[in-house]
Amino acid sequence: MSSPSSLEALIEALRVLPGVGPRSAQRMAYHLLQRDQSGARRLSEALGRALDVLRHCQRCNSFSEQDVCGRCTSPGRDARQLCVVEMPADLAVLEQSRSYNGLYYVLMGRLSPLDGIGPRELGLERLLARATDGVVEEVILATNFTNEGEATAHLVSELMHARGLRVSRLSRGVPVGGELEHTDAGTIAQALIERRPA
Amino acid sequence: MSSPSSLEALIEALRVLPGVGPRSAQRMAYHLLQRDQSGARRLSEALGRALDVLRHCQRCNSFSEQDVCGRCTSPGRDARQLCVVEMPADLAVLEQSRSYNGLYYVLMGRLSPLDGIGPRELGLERLLARATDGVVEEVILATNFTNEGEATAHLVSELMHARGLRVSRLSRGVPVGGELEHTDAGTIAQALIERRPA
Repeated sequence: MSSPSSLEALIEALRVLPGVGPRSAQRMAYHLLQRDQSGARRLSEALGRALDVLRHCQRCNSFSEQDVCGRCTSPGRDARQLCVVEMPADLAVLEQSRSYNGLYYVLMGRLSPLDGIGPRELGLERLLARATDGVVEEVILATNFTNEGEATAHLVSELMHARGLRVSRLSRGVPVGGELEHTDAGTIAQALIERRPA
Repeated sequence: MSSPSSLEALIEALRVLPGVGPRSAQRMAYHLLQRDQSGARRLSEALGRALDVLRHCQRCNSFSEQDVCGRCTSPGRDARQLCVVEMPADLAVLEQSRSYNGLYYVLMGRLSPLDGIGPRELGLERLLARATDGVVEEVILATNFTNEGEATAHLVSELMHARGLRVSRLSRGVPVGGELEHTDAGTIAQALIERRPA
């Protein structure tokens, strides 16, 4: 007599979550069944519904419940600027800064040769088609300042320049409110190189 | 324009999982939607099905798809022995040892005053009713050898003795295959106190 099959199936299914191995899948299953059945039901339904209704916006590629999301069709936004980010969470951070009113393109990833994600897997043709719609004048690269994010920005920049588009990149430097004493040397070096007239 | 509501709902729902905060819930949601939609569908359905069909066995209190599980009704098992464990995972470990053929009672927890889990919350009356069915002769305590597990074993032992039942506890000592050099001092001390004639 082993565990009931529905329990085994749940433990196995929980392992699709990133970073969840057999032990923590078991712990999660017991927790859901024993301590939070209503939360578990909510999770099952939220997951099913998200799978049913979410797709990628045909213009910005972010998650959307419509073919083209509300942001991309908003008349209040400046369609001449296109900001390229890695993930929807990055887009959210930019929106929270309330300092950008253009449109976005969400790569849903970054170049990562070790994981087999090259230009093709990242769907860069779609970004190219989007950026050459005749309206976009400037492409703002807002990928992360990690090695992979920088490599992605570099390649996108080359592709855009080849199409005659203006390309910019978020500036690097000491964080606002940051103390030099607590800023890493690489950032200090970059802030020196990219120093501005004052 | 914030995220689609179905995405927000999924991220919020993922936070019912133990140890999952807002950041990792977001990461999990993106992963499921972007990289593993079939795994996500499987998870949604496995969770829904487990909630629909799983209940607690009326005899051993473990998860079961029947009112009384197959183990408790098996004629091949010795109903005179009742082994008390904290969780189904502990039961599984004992079964894997192939050295026990009696029945089980799964507490589905342990005494934990700090979490508000006392004798009542742990349902010890149900264990008492189960152990005094007139068939059980020996109660074997196999709760963990943690502070909480030991406290649980101690209380259950007192309750059982008061009913005139024979009670035993798994032995403590140096693990099989273990080297003394790599065994903690507390275990060595216990192994000395509980030394057996050889």
